[in-house]
Parts: sequence; C-alpha cells; structure tokens
Amino acid sequence: MKQIVTFGEIMMRLSPPLNYRLEQASALEVTYGGGDANVAASLACLGLPAAHVTCFPDHQLGRAAVQQFRRLGVDMRHTVFSAGGRLGLYFLEVGSALRASTIVYDRFDSAFAKLDPAAFDWEEILKDAQWFHWTGITAAVSASAAQACRDAIKVARRLGITVSADVNYRRNLWQYGQRAQDVMPELVEGCDVVVCSEGDADDLFGIKADEGAANKFASMAEKLMQRFPQIKQVIATKRKTQSASHERIKGMLVEAGHGYQETQYYDITPVVDRIGGGDAFIAGFVYGALQLGSAEAALAFATAASALKHTIHGDVNLATAAEVAHIVAGNTTGRLLR
Amino acid sequence: MKQIVTFGEIMMRLSPPLNYRLEQASALEVTYGGGDANVAASLACLGLPAAHVTCFPDHQLGRAAVQQFRRLGVDMRHTVFSAGGRLGLYFLEVGSALRASTIVYDRFDSAFAKLDPAAFDWEEILKDAQWFHWTGITAAVSASAAQACRDAIKVARRLGITVSADVNYRRNLWQYGQRAQDVMPELVEGCDVVVCSEGDADDLFGIKADEGAANKFASMAEKLMQRFPQIKQVIATKRKTQSASHERIKGMLVEAGHGYQETQYYDITPVVDRIGGGDAFIAGFVYGALQLGSAEAALAFATAASALKHTIHGDVNLATAAEVAHIVAGNTTGRLLR
Amino acid sequence: MKQIVTFGEIMMRLSPPLNYRLEQASALEVTYGGGDANVAASLACLGLPAAHVTCFPDHQLGRAAVQQFRRLGVDMRHTVFSAGGRLGLYFLEVGSALRASTIVYDRFDSAFAKLDPAAFDWEEILKDAQWFHWTGITAAVSASAAQACRDAIKVARRLGITVSADVNYRRNLWQYGQRAQDVMPELVEGCDVVVCSEGDADDLFGIKADEGAANKFASMAEKLMQRFPQIKQVIATKRKTQSASHERIKGMLVEAGHGYQETQYYDITPVVDRIGGGDAFIAGFVYGALQLGSAEAALAFATAASALKHTIHGDVNLATAAEVAHIVAGNTTGRLLR
Amino acid sequence: MKQIVTFGEIMMRLSPPLNYRLEQASALEVTYGGGDANVAASLACLGLPAAHVTCFPDHQLGRAAVQQFRRLGVDMRHTVFSAGGRLGLYFLEVGSALRASTIVYDRFDSAFAKLDPAAFDWEEILKDAQWFHWTGITAAVSASAAQACRDAIKVARRLGITVSADVNYRRNLWQYGQRAQDVMPELVEGCDVVVCSEGDADDLFGIKADEGAANKFASMAEKLMQRFPQIKQVIATKRKTQSASHERIKGMLVEAGHGYQETQYYDITPVVDRIGGGDAFIAGFVYGALQLGSAEAALAFATAASALKHTIHGDVNLATAAEVAHIVAGNTTGRLLR
Amino acid sequence: MKQIVTFGEIMMRLSPPLNYRLEQASALEVTYGGGDANVAASLACLGLPAAHVTCFPDHQLGRAAVQQFRRLGVDMRHTVFSAGGRLGLYFLEVGSALRASTIVYDRFDSAFAKLDPAAFDWEEILKDAQWFHWTGITAAVSASAAQACRDAIKVARRLGITVSADVNYRRNLWQYGQRAQDVMPELVEGCDVVVCSEGDADDLFGIKADEGAANKFASMAEKLMQRFPQIKQVIATKRKTQSASHERIKGMLVEAGHGYQETQYYDITPVVDRIGGGDAFIAGFVYGALQLGSAEAALAFATAASALKHTIHGDVNLATAAEVAHIVAGNTTGRLLR
Amino acid sequence: MKQIVTFGEIMMRLSPPLNYRLEQASALEVTYGGGDANVAASLACLGLPAAHVTCFPDHQLGRAAVQQFRRLGVDMRHTVFSAGGRLGLYFLEVGSALRASTIVYDRFDSAFAKLDPAAFDWEEILKDAQWFHWTGITAAVSASAAQACRDAIKVARRLGITVSADVNYRRNLWQYGQRAQDVMPELVEGCDVVVCSEGDADDLFGIKADEGAANKFASMAEKLMQRFPQIKQVIATKRKTQSASHERIKGMLVEAGHGYQETQYYDITPVVDRIGGGDAFIAGFVYGALQLGSAEAALAFATAASALKHTIHGDVNLATAAEVAHIVAGNTTGRLLR
Repeated sequence: MKQIVTFGEIMMRLSPPLNYRLEQASALEVTYGGGDANVAASLACLGLPAAHVTCFPDHQLGRAAVQQFRRLGVDMRHTVFSAGGRLGLYFLEVGSALRASTIVYDRFDSAFAKLDPAAFDWEEILKDAQWFHWTGITAAVSASAAQACRDAIKVARRLGITVSADVNYRRNLWQYGQRAQDVMPELVEGCDVVVCSEGDADDLFGIKADEGAANKFASMAEKLMQRFPQIKQVIATKRKTQSASHERIKGMLVEAGHGYQETQYYDITPVVDRIGGGDAFIAGFVYGALQLGSAEAALAFATAASALKHTIHGDVNLATAAEVAHIVAGNTTGRLLR
Repeated sequence: MKQIVTFGEIMMRLSPPLNYRLEQASALEVTYGGGDANVAASLACLGLPAAHVTCFPDHQLGRAAVQQFRRLGVDMRHTVFSAGGRLGLYFLEVGSALRASTIVYDRFDSAFAKLDPAAFDWEEILKDAQWFHWTGITAAVSASAAQACRDAIKVARRLGITVSADVNYRRNLWQYGQRAQDVMPELVEGCDVVVCSEGDADDLFGIKADEGAANKFASMAEKLMQRFPQIKQVIATKRKTQSASHERIKGMLVEAGHGYQETQYYDITPVVDRIGGGDAFIAGFVYGALQLGSAEAALAFATAASALKHTIHGDVNLATAAEVAHIVAGNTTGRLLR
Repeated sequence: MKQIVTFGEIMMRLSPPLNYRLEQASALEVTYGGGDANVAASLACLGLPAAHVTCFPDHQLGRAAVQQFRRLGVDMRHTVFSAGGRLGLYFLEVGSALRASTIVYDRFDSAFAKLDPAAFDWEEILKDAQWFHWTGITAAVSASAAQACRDAIKVARRLGITVSADVNYRRNLWQYGQRAQDVMPELVEGCDVVVCSEGDADDLFGIKADEGAANKFASMAEKLMQRFPQIKQVIATKRKTQSASHERIKGMLVEAGHGYQETQYYDITPVVDRIGGGDAFIAGFVYGALQLGSAEAALAFATAASALKHTIHGDVNLATAAEVAHIVAGNTTGRLLR
Repeated sequence: MKQIVTFGEIMMRLSPPLNYRLEQASALEVTYGGGDANVAASLACLGLPAAHVTCFPDHQLGRAAVQQFRRLGVDMRHTVFSAGGRLGLYFLEVGSALRASTIVYDRFDSAFAKLDPAAFDWEEILKDAQWFHWTGITAAVSASAAQACRDAIKVARRLGITVSADVNYRRNLWQYGQRAQDVMPELVEGCDVVVCSEGDADDLFGIKADEGAANKFASMAEKLMQRFPQIKQVIATKRKTQSASHERIKGMLVEAGHGYQETQYYDITPVVDRIGGGDAFIAGFVYGALQLGSAEAALAFATAASALKHTIHGDVNLATAAEVAHIVAGNTTGRLLR
Repeated sequence: MKQIVTFGEIMMRLSPPLNYRLEQASALEVTYGGGDANVAASLACLGLPAAHVTCFPDHQLGRAAVQQFRRLGVDMRHTVFSAGGRLGLYFLEVGSALRASTIVYDRFDSAFAKLDPAAFDWEEILKDAQWFHWTGITAAVSASAAQACRDAIKVARRLGITVSADVNYRRNLWQYGQRAQDVMPELVEGCDVVVCSEGDADDLFGIKADEGAANKFASMAEKLMQRFPQIKQVIATKRKTQSASHERIKGMLVEAGHGYQETQYYDITPVVDRIGGGDAFIAGFVYGALQLGSAEAALAFATAASALKHTIHGDVNLATAAEVAHIVAGNTTGRLLR
Repeated sequence: MKQIVTFGEIMMRLSPPLNYRLEQASALEVTYGGGDANVAASLACLGLPAAHVTCFPDHQLGRAAVQQFRRLGVDMRHTVFSAGGRLGLYFLEVGSALRASTIVYDRFDSAFAKLDPAAFDWEEILKDAQWFHWTGITAAVSASAAQACRDAIKVARRLGITVSADVNYRRNLWQYGQRAQDVMPELVEGCDVVVCSEGDADDLFGIKADEGAANKFASMAEKLMQRFPQIKQVIATKRKTQSASHERIKGMLVEAGHGYQETQYYDITPVVDRIGGGDAFIAGFVYGALQLGSAEAALAFATAASALKHTIHGDVNLATAAEVAHIVAGNTTGRLLR
C-alpha cells in the first residue's frame, strides 16, 4: 500500500505529572508531537504506512524525537538534520474541572522554522505516496517552511496524490512578515480535503456562513468549496467543552454534491488528554477514506478515533483500527476486555 | 474464632501507572491477586482470621507473592513451594471513559496449574476452619487443580464446614481436556453458598430463567437450588457499567425458602480499580454471614464492600469493617474524616 | 502596599500518591500547610504582600518548611526557631467517590505549641501591616499560642489594623485545660471580619439561628454581630459534598447594615485536592476587600478562588489574581489556553 | 522450632530518594525499623521463627507498621495497640562521599514510650521462645519501657531462655529522669550474650580496657564478663568508615574461657544503606548460635550478614541464609547469578 | 550499505529500580532485550543498517517489544506474529558491592520457542544483507528455533554473507531433548567469526587449551579454527569482576594466520548495567570489521563499546560511533562535554 | 549585614533521572541554575544576605525560576520581567565511570540576552550591597548583557563595593559580533577578586605563565595582577578528574603581596553532581573573605564548599556554614550524624 506523507514541525512537550502546576513540578514528562506528525503517527497505529517529513537540530534532542515517531512505526527516513536552530518546545499544564489547561510555547528559531526548502526532494519523498497532509501551522512558522509546503503541494498535485490540510489559524504564530490571508489561499487551492472551522474560514478567507443559515457549518463549507473548487470535502469536529475534565464532541462533513452529515455526540469524562484530538480525527478520516466504503463511514470512524484520543496520554492517538471500530460499533461503556 | 480458608492461584499483576497504555509504560506497577485469595485478604482486612492455600514456584517471585498476602494478615502457612512451573502473571491496562480496560493473561504452566493434589493435607489445613471458599477458575486451570479442589470440598463437607463457590465461568481458560460442564456440577454439589450469574448458570448447568419470569435472577437461582439441594443461598452483583470510569452496582440474593432480595444501586465515579469488585462482595457476604444477624444485613454489607473496593487500588479490598459499616449506614458522600 | 500578616502553626503534610491508602504507600508526598499560613501564601500568589509568623524547631524540617512558604513569596522573616518541640505533621489519605479522605494528625508537642509568647515583638511585626488574620486552631493548640494570638490582636487593634478570624472550632484539639468557650469570645471581640459556620457559632458562643428563620446563616450572623459589635462582616462557604471527588460550593456574606448575599454554586468534578478550600476563600475575600470595589465583588472573588483551589494540589491556592478573575468572569468550562 | 522474641519500638523512617537533601524532596520514602525489630525481621528472612513485641497507636500508621513486619514473616500477634501516643518517626538524609548521612529523630511521646508494662503478659509471650533480645534504646525511652524490659528478662531467666542485649548507649535519649548508669546494670546482669563497644562499656559501666592491652576490645570484654558473670559472649563489629559511600567492617567476639576471635574486614563500596548493619550482625549471630556448630562459625555468619545488609535498602537485612552462606564461602565479587 | 541481520528471541526485562530487591519493588522497570537483538540494536545506534528477525505473540506485549527496537532504528519488518505462545520474560535484581545481581528467567513456551521455521523466508530476509549473526541461546530454546537458525545459516552461506555466532552455552536452557554437543557443531561449522570462551569450547566441543600453553585462550582458539576451518576469527572478552559495582574487562582475538591480540583492561566503576556487555562487544566488532581498517582496530572498538555499555541502562549499548571512538582515543576520564 | 549581589542569566536545567540518556527519559528532572545565581544561592544557604539580579520572560516559567531562588533565601526583588524572549534552558545527561556527562545548551534569544540595560537601576540595587559578583558568561551572552554588567561594575566601584568575577571563557557563546578579547579587559579592570584558569588567562588576555615557572598558576596570576592592578586576589580550583564518578579537587590562591597558597586535594567518589562546583568555590571564598580571618581560611572554606557541592544534586551548593566547617575541620569520612 502506498504511503500517507505528512510535513511539519515536531516539538518536545514538557508537562508536569497529573494536574500539577508548572511551578510545582520537580520533573516534567516528555513526549513529542506536532499537528501533522500526530496524523502520521495515528495512521501508523491504525496500521497504514505513514511517513513524516521534518527538520531537526543535529543533536541528542533531535535524535530522541526521531526515535519516538519511529517507535510508533512512522517512516522518518526523510528527516533533515540541520546544524542551526533548536528543537521547538511546548510546556503543557493540564487543568482539571473549571481550571483550564494552559500551554506555553517555546518554538521560535527552531531548526524547522529555519529549514532550507531545497533540502527536501519532494519528487523522491512522494514517489510512493498516495496522500499528502499539511497544516496551517507549518505555513505560519516561517517563509521557508511555507515555501517547502508550497513545493510539496505542487509535486503532490502533479503526481496525482490526494492533498489534505488542517487550515488551523493561530494568529500569534504568524510573525515572519507575511499575512496568513495572503499565504494560505494559494496553498489551500491545491487541496482535496480541508479541515476548517467557521472561525478559520472567516479569519483566513473572509468566508462567512449565510446569516440565516440553519446550518452555519454547511453554509460556510459550501462557500469554501465554491472559492476553492479542488476541495471535495470539508470536515471538522464540534466541541462542547463542559470542563477541563469533560468534553463532548461530534464530527461534521460537507461533501461536494452530497451535502452535510454529522455524527452523534460522544461524551468523554474524565478526559485524560485532549491535545491531538483534532489530529486523531483527521487520521481517522484519512483511514476511513482509504479503507472504508463511504464518507459516512469515514466520518464515523474519524469521530470515534477522536473520542478515543481523549482517553490516551500524549499528542498521538495510539488506538488500533480494531479499537476504533469497537467504539464505532457502539461499545462505549468501557466494559473490561479480558 | 475459626478460620475462613480459600484455595486458588495467585498471580502477579503488572499494570502501567494511571491510564497509560502498555506500550507507553517504562515501569509497571506490581500487585498480586487471585479470585479466591482476594476473598481471604479482604476478610483479613475486615478483621476475620483467614488462610489461603496455594502453590508457588520456589524463587523470589513466589516468596514476594507470599509476603504481600502475609502483609495483609492472611495465614500463608500452607503454601506449597514447587520446583516446577512459573508464577502466573496478568498485564492490566486501565482504561478511561469510553476506552475499556484490557487484560492480557500469561498464566499457563504456572506452578499452581502443575500442583500435586497430594501435596495438600486438607484434614490438617481445615481442622480449625469454619468456611471454605473456592472459584470456578481453579477448576479451569488444570485437572490437578480441579482434583485438589474436589479433595478439599470433600473434607470440608465431612468436617461440617460451610462451603462457598464463585462459579465464574471463563471459557478460554478450560484447556486441559475436560469440559467445565462435566467438572463443575460435581464440585458445586457440595456448596452451601454460590455466586452465579444468569449467564454462568446457562453455560455451566444449562439452567435458564423462566421465559416470562419477572425476576430472571430469582428464577435461575431457584432452579439452581433445586438442582443442587445443598445450596442455600445464591448471590450475585449486577453491574450497570456506564464507562470505564463509572460503575453502578447492586447486590442480589435468593435464599432457599426466603426468596429474593436486592440492595439499591451504588454509583461509583470515578472508579479507581474495578478488579476484585466481585471478590470483595463475596468477602463481605462471608463477613456478614458470620458476624451480622441476617442475610439481608450480609447482602447490604457485601454490596457496600464491593462498592468501596472500586475506590481502592489493587485486587484486594483493603477496607476495614468499620469503613464498610460507615457506607452501609448511608455515609456515601465521602465527607472528609479528621 | 502594606502587608497582610497571618499567625499560626505550619505542619508538614504527608500523603500517599493519587488515591492510595497509607498502608500501600512506599513513598509519601510532602507539602506544608496551616490554616492561616495558607491564607498568607494564597495572598502572595494573588500578588499582595503577605507575611506569616510562626515557630519552628531549629533543624532541617523547620528550615524546609520556611523554604516552601518563602518560595511562594511569603515574608518569613519573623519565624522564631526554638530548640524545643517538633514539627507538627499530618497524614492525609485522599479518598475517591464514596470513600472519604481521612486525616491522621500528629501535631502535639510541636515547637509552635510550645512557643514563648514573649518571643514575638508584635509592634515590630505589625508596624507595616494593614491586616491581621488568625484562626481558632491557633487558640486551640496551647495556652501560650492563644496568648500570642491575644497579644497580636491587641497590638493590631491599637495600630488600627483590620483583624479577621476563621473561628474554626475543632473539639478534639482543645486539650490544654481551657475551654474554647472561655478563650474564644475575648479573641473574637477584637475582629472586624469573621468566618463562622452555624455549627461553630452554636458550639463556641451558644448562638443559634432563629428557629423559623428563612435564612439560618443570616440569622446567626446578625446575632453574632450583635454580640461582638466590632464585627462588620460574617462570611462562610456552604458545601454540598456530592462525593470525595465532587464538591459543590457557594459563598455567603452578611454585612452589618447591608444584609445577606450569596453566590451561585460552583460545581467541581473531579476534585484534585479539597484541603485549604476555606483558606483560599478567606484569602480571596481579603484580596477583594483590599483591591475590589465592593463586598459583593469580594465575595464573588473569594468563592471563585475557593473553587479553583479544589483543582490544585496541596494546601495552598496557587492561582493568580488573573486566573481567579477569569473564573469570576464566567469562564468555567476549562477551555484550553494557548 | 522455638521462637526468637525481640522487644522494642518500631519507627516510621522517612527518607528522600537517592542522596537528595530533605529540603529538596517532594516525596519521602517510607520504611519501618527499630533496633530490636530489625533483628527479628532479619531472623525471619534467614528462616527462623521470630516474633516482635511492641506497642503502636491504634490508627492507620500503627497498622501499616504491623503490616510491614508481618510481610517479612515476623509474628506480630503480641502487638499492643494503645489509644494514647503517636508513632515514632525518624527522618534520614543519605549522604555521599564526604557528606555524612544525618538523622532527625522525632520519637518522643510515642505510644511505645507511653506503654503500660502490665499490658504485656510475658509468661504467655515467651512460653514458646528459646531466645529473648532487647536493646539499650528500649531502656532509654521511658521508665515504663525499661520496666517492661525488666519484666521480660525476669520471665526469660525463669523459663531458661537465652537473653541477649545490644547495650547501645545513646546519651540524648535518656530524658525520663533516670540515669543509664543506674538502669542498665540490673538489666545487663540477666544477659547471656552482649553487644558492647569499648565506648559503651566505659560510659555505662565505667569499664575501661587495660591501658597497655594489645587488644582493647578483648580486655574490656573480659572485665565485662567478670562484672556480669551471666554473660558468656561479648560481640561487636568494628567499622573503618572510609566515606559515606564506603565502609569496612569486621566482627569481633570474646567468649568466656575461649578468648578473642575476629574476622577479616569486608570492604563495601558503594554502600546502599548502612542503617541496621549492627542489627543484621546480631541476627546473624543468633542464627549462627542456633544453627551452626561453633562460635567461630556464628561470628563469620554474623559479619557476612552485616556486610550484605549494607547493600540492601531499608533497616532490615533481607538476605536469606543461603545468600549469607554464599558470602561466607568467599563469593564476594558479586558475580551475576542466573 | 547492506544490512546486518540478527535472529533470536526478545524478552521483556522487568527490574526493580536502583538496587532494590524484587520483594521490595512496587513497580518494575520495563526494557526489552535478547542476546542477538542487542547486537542489531547496538549496530543501529552505531549508525549501520541492522535488521532483527524474531517471533512474538500477537498482542500488546509483542507489539510493545517491536516498538522499542524500531525506536532504536532496527528494521523489524520481518517479525512473525504468532497466535500461540507467550512473550518470554526475565526478572533482574541488580546487586551492589558484594551482593550479586540475580536473574529469574521466565521464558519457556514463548512464541519464539514455538516458532514455525517455515514462517521465515530467509532468501527474502537476507537478500540485502552482508552479515548474519546468531547465538547459542537460540539453538538452545527449541528444536524449531534451532532449525530456523540452521536454515538461515545455510542461505547466508549460499549468498556469500559473513556469519558470526556467540556460542554462549547455557546448560539449563537445553531442555527440548537434544544435546548442545550434538546440535551446535553443525551450526558453528558455517561461521566466519565466533565468540567463544575457554569454558564454552570445552563444554560444547570438548576442545581444551594445551596444558602448558602460555596463552590458554589462543591455544583453544587455534584448535577451534582447526576443527571448524570456516572460522577465521575467534574473539572474546575477559572479565575481572571486582564486585557487582566494579568490572574490569579486556578484549581478545585470535585470527587465522595472525595469532593473538588483546587490548588493555578498562576499569569501570560504578557499573550502571552489565547486562549486554558481551553483545555490545560483538556489535562493536562487526562495526569495526565493516568500517575500520584492521582486526586490531575492530578489537579496540569492540572493547571500548563493551566498556561504555556498562555505563548505560538496559540491555542495549546506546552509544554512537563517535562516542565509542572518543573512548578508543583515550578519553576515559569522563570529562564533562558542553 | 550588607548584601552580596550577583548578576546573570538563570536557566532551567532539564536532566534525565540517574544516569539515563536523554533518549531514554520519559521525564526530565527540573532545577534552575546560572553561574552567578548559584553563587548568590550558595551564599544564602551559608547564611549571608544575597540578592540576584536577572531578567525573565513574563510567564509561568519565569515565575517558577524566581520561586526556586526565593525558596533558597535569595532576594529576587530586582528581577525584571520582560515581554520578549524566552527562558534559557540546558539539557544535562549525567555520565558514569568513563562515560562523560554532556550538556546541550538551548539559551539563545532568552529574555536575559535581550534585556534592556536601562531596566536596571544599579544605584538602587547596590545601595545596601558590600560585594558584587559577575561572570564572563554574562558578558558573552549579548551586547546588552555586557553593557548592564559594565554599568553595574561602574556603580559598584563608585560605591566602594568589592567586585569579583569568574572570567569563565566559553568560546562558542560569544556570537553577538564582539570579541571576548575586546570586551572582557575593560570589565575585569574593575575587579578586586578574579577566578581565572591558566587557559582563560591565555585565551582572554594573552597572558601566559613563564615557560620555566615552577608554579604555572602563580606565574599567570602575578602577571594578571600586574596587568589589572585593581585585582588583589586570583583564585581557582584544580580538578584531577578520575572519571565521571570520581573527582579530585584542590583550591589555589595568589594574593597580591602574599604569594601562592593551595589546599590539599579532596577525593570525591561517587560524585553526585559536579555542576556548580566552581560556583560553590566562589561562594565559599566570598563567605570566607567576609566571615573568616584570613585568605588562607577563606581558601580552605571555599575548597571544602566546592567538594561538598559535588555530593549535592542540582546547580546550587545547599550546604550550611556549619556543614562546610565540619569538612574543613577534617571530618571527611562521612560518619553518620544522629
């Protein structure tokens, strides 16, 4: 089977144990993650061949990060090690009940942000791929990262590879002198599947749902597909966050020519780790698109995968395909399996 | 006071901390448990004299297991150490919310399964006992374990000791060439108190509740007592599992000549550890039968003990009799005790 | 800004990890706390200048305790180190669901209980203070501790400093030969703000709410202010404990001439640590009284602070003023903050 | 085989992990120990029937301490639980290289110190015993503890049981108004085997080695046996402490009528835990006296046991008799055993 | 570059933290290792392409083991997952000073022991290989494992691949009805490089060094090469174990036609983990043979690699080629590298 | 007593537990340190009033760092919190035996490096100071940090405050466009006491010991004092590193007009943590200069302090003055202190 390839930065995540505050921690738990790498890793856990492309500093920390994704089965062969730059970090303090989780990012000047686009031979990287996925965060990090993304999408298009994007607009990341509103449209133009919330559509593309629309998401998605005709599917999760310990999520999909679908809400309490819930959704959707018969089945699989992710520590959804299918089949009471 | 004696295998339990998956764990927490040993240990914690009879390999692991039950006050004097066989293990991954807990058993070829029935002098072991308890798992493990069980029940009957059994049918354990349906009836015949679910009654004895019975459990239990006239009480818990983190349980009892009784449901959220909840129920019932005035009081005590067990880490209910009585008295809001 | 000064014993708290029982713990987590010191520390975290006055044994444990409060920004300059006496301790076992948390105190004969009142130069200590806070526990510990408290209140009154007290009656602490009912009235007489529940008012002062009063707390508080005319505000939290893992709390206030106010209930599940919830409430109220415009705002701030404390490990509320204000503003769903 | 019975206080030991200082520890490791209880526990690990007699407060901590000695196989049946008093504690900071380990004791007013001598029925306790062991620390703790010790020795003498003592003089423990020099001689008078250093002999009994004696220990021991004719053996270890991480120890023995013997030095580096090294020596000597043919063999076994103890965490020597014999046989290079 | 391929069982290793005894551990640290897999993993860390071939049970534990070797960069593509059998385990208690480390094996009936030789397509597996390495342990485990080994060697020979073996005779492993003395010669016959101690040569092949030989190892090795003419190099490490915490090792080599060479001794104190020291030596030798100019350089590299391994936790030598070269260059004082 | 004030960057230090490699760590231990801050903290532990001046990012990490130095008693009042920049980090992997410890720095673009020199009001900061200490690392970090250092020294000189410097040349830190050789002389000119090795003197000032000098250090130091006449004392430690686990150190001093002195070597094995050993030496020397009678006594105290530091975890020497004096008095065998 051909690979799914993702591209983007991987950060070290440092987090106090349990619900401790950063100032209380005498040790910080170490995991690694990144919006796109999490998709590759989740796909590898689901059993599909996945590769991730990134750039690391050439020292112990970069090598440790490679090891953790290789452990999960991600093909890390294409990693570029560069002499300059650091490993991006983020510090996560996990909240509880009405206390929010908080993140302190420490990712500027990373090796990834300083990457040389010419270091990636996309023809070679994508020659055995069937799907390429990227996120708006990569485009936000630096001009060179955005350029590498542009290069990859171009090659992918030429090779007839499906392209997906999580547009994921984070205002305070865009600091390299270009506006997201100028950079993103060109990149999104080349995508077949897009993850996009109503807020992102407005912020990035000035696309708003119709005032009186019964279904705001569907209205936005239809307009998005009109603007970018290559896009065939717009997907998203909807969260009803009850507390830092209790989430409710459902999946939504608008397919060109087939309209809107959604799943039931999943109720998750207590939440073990909500980071990467969206990435698990995307990986589930890619899995479904490639392995299951219908968009409806893909959406159901994606949403169950995202729900399961909330019960798993770290950025990556470690669930197997059988475990996700078990949830899709309605086994949500967590009955002991011997 | 005379002893309660139990018989069966003790396994080492290896479990990742918190809700981590096995593949994430750099260390596994070690505890020890077994369906019948848990009953003895819970009884010791409740303050009654309890002994457990088992067989261990003669090395550090066997000795470590003895230590942990001795710590809780169980008389382990009758342990047989054998040169052959290993210590049975099980790996427990604790789920959360909609993710189920899972168990990987690694118990074949244990010293217990390979025990020599002649190594147990039941006349000696039971000479100061008032109650003998065993489980269907012991009968499932090997022909020699089943034989030792048979021997023990026979001696217990002759000495006028109360015999109880948790029939606990686990299909995939029965691999030594005999069928549970052939082995179990003879053993159950000698019992005064039996823990049996409707499913087990059907699978093991072909006993089904009457089609139209208002109370399926009561119907099954009456038939079971007709088939095995020695049985005077059939008990069980009923679980309404809400999620891996949320259980609801009640206790049920049918007494020969006194009909059906049940308790209210206890609501337990979050669940700390559900393993051994049934064993805690049995220990509570034995305690109640010996120390309290009525079957009703025993059932109430047993159910409260089982509920409390769900809040305690490990296989064994460490609650004292006073703590269980506190719950029976209605103190279920967990108000801080200074 | 002038300091808030608190006075009282600090104990080492030893607690098994997670929900383990004391007998299961191979290590105990160490924190430090005391009803009044927690108020000073919470105020320091909120950004106000706070000092705590106490007495420690002159060895590593006393120094370690000083360090932990100094870390949080509390001025510990006035600590008296004495050759005699020990460091008070308490052992906390954290319950779950229907299993209660339990505390074993080991605080008798502490250096604090044996303090020499003459060792504290209150004129010097309070010369830059604007508020003095003490609790009924200090008065309960020993005659000399009560005397030091009496001295401090007297100096505070003379210097025109606001005095607050948490009357906090703990029957089994009063063992030095005087009755709380004889000692406390004289001390409370000098207070401007008092934390007092209906039970405490009855036990300590024989004050009962009117039989038919619609609002028992308000009725009691009015009577308390009549008895002690210096008191201008009586405050308290009301807990509806659902389980050891789930609390509901609201704040209540009666102000001389302005009557009764209360907040909505906060629902906190799961509870991380309920110890110090009342102290966080008091610190929040002091903050509000000094920094916000109205008693209503102070009550709202105090109650939100107390709710947040339940999500934070240890005796002390580590929340910043911005975090508490975030809750007061209605952000109680714990939405991730990047 | 008849029991060896020991009597004395058991304390909870709280210690930072590794070589951390107390002020650095966010958790303290919990073990339990006491000079005489360690002897009983070491003997149980060596395979002999051992019982320990003590007094605990009647709450979770006392029960937890009982569990830990019961775990090791010590008969704790005779434990007296008393309503008054606390559990004695000690805080141990483990040094390294030139930094000394330090202990902060917190044992005053313990349930043991406050014991009622009448609560111990020594006739019953010692009826199946062959050996009784006590230490000078017990006599130091309180008048009632010294009295219980006196009672026990008297009954032991009458029953013809061997009595041993570790005289262990700790000046700052003697605070109950009597002098060690007045209390100890009467107690030591009834002993057959005594552990006594030259310093202790001088401090307690005013016995000094002859000025010009070639062997100071032998000279002192001979005089001690002259003063107390019941004593047949005087033993001790000699330490040449190189650093907190490196000890050298040998064993010494003077036997009435047989003169002086000593072993070679054992070199132990790194030291895992030196606490209880002397108690392991005594347990080894008792084992040797009862199981091996000669005083020489007993001394060799005792010294090897003490050396092994330095490699084992906690107060108690967990070595089996086979492991000690392995060392006695000269296997001191720690070659891997598969 | 072509792969180095190894074949053999991987076990889960469970070990108490630090120097704790098994009975003291409330958690066991988990790593994975196997004599041949360690060689592959060490080579991957040194930067060469390495693959390991093995058989695991098809459940979480097998998958976790795959992950850990994949993490280190070992190609695990050829892993066979089988329905039957368990994951082999071993329990390691790490000694200190004169207390030996001990291992309790629990590896019988593993999926590997029960492997089906036909499940391995050696033509395919070895088609891109340049070196094949196996150990005597694999031949000891079961007839089918020995058969798979035989198959592999045969294919390797035909493909012109270098074959190496660590003959590693463990008497108590050989329990499947065939004698090592009958099985091993045929397998060793096909090897180019052999790791063999004098003891193993005697036990397995009846080869003894000449009585009066100045160099026993050289004498044995010459005879071994005479018996098995395919062998061109016989290598081994010599240990002078000082204590469980202190090793001294050197490397030895006899090369057909070039005689004996040895390195200086390395002094390693303290030893962090001695398991896998021999496997690190072999990996170092393979690296040297392929990357460095001479047998002398290979031997020096191998011995330094083995010395470094003793400072690294786990079975596998995680050192990079640069780190080993740093030691070879004489930098053995461990000076801080910034 | 007047304060000792230090100035420089504080970094978060992240380190795997024990001797694990970075890639093996699932959690990293967190401490904080900086060459100059360590001096202030060590002085505070020795009992002198110390203040540290630095700049942190205005988020949780900066606040956590402040807390840790405040905990040790350092006056952190003058901390500047800036909106820009990050918290500098370093990753420390602790070696063992022949494996070196390694550090990966991640400190570029820190808030400290980006500090605004105008943000520090040195007149105010130094008004109650008697000593100012800085290091060459501060001058290396950025032009603005060097400028702040220059400002501080100028004010210190004017106020008649003693100035000391650890010249500490780290080539790869100097990346802001100026050469150390140009920046440092002007700064060192204003110093009374300088820590300087022969290598640093050559690299920074082109000062070499006389070719044939019997004492190279003395020769270099004399020349240094000739070049910079303000300098009255040149001090340094000499390390003879035996292995990553074994250090030998002595102290050296040349005083204007009094010539060379040195201490005996201290032998430290095992080393717990060598980071900050030089800073502990300086703090010890400052303590000695202010509290003890002679340069000789100061040197002895400084060297003992440095030796003790090697046995303490973290960057800071937590030893009290009494503990250092205990070592100076010759108590280096680490005998247990009760």
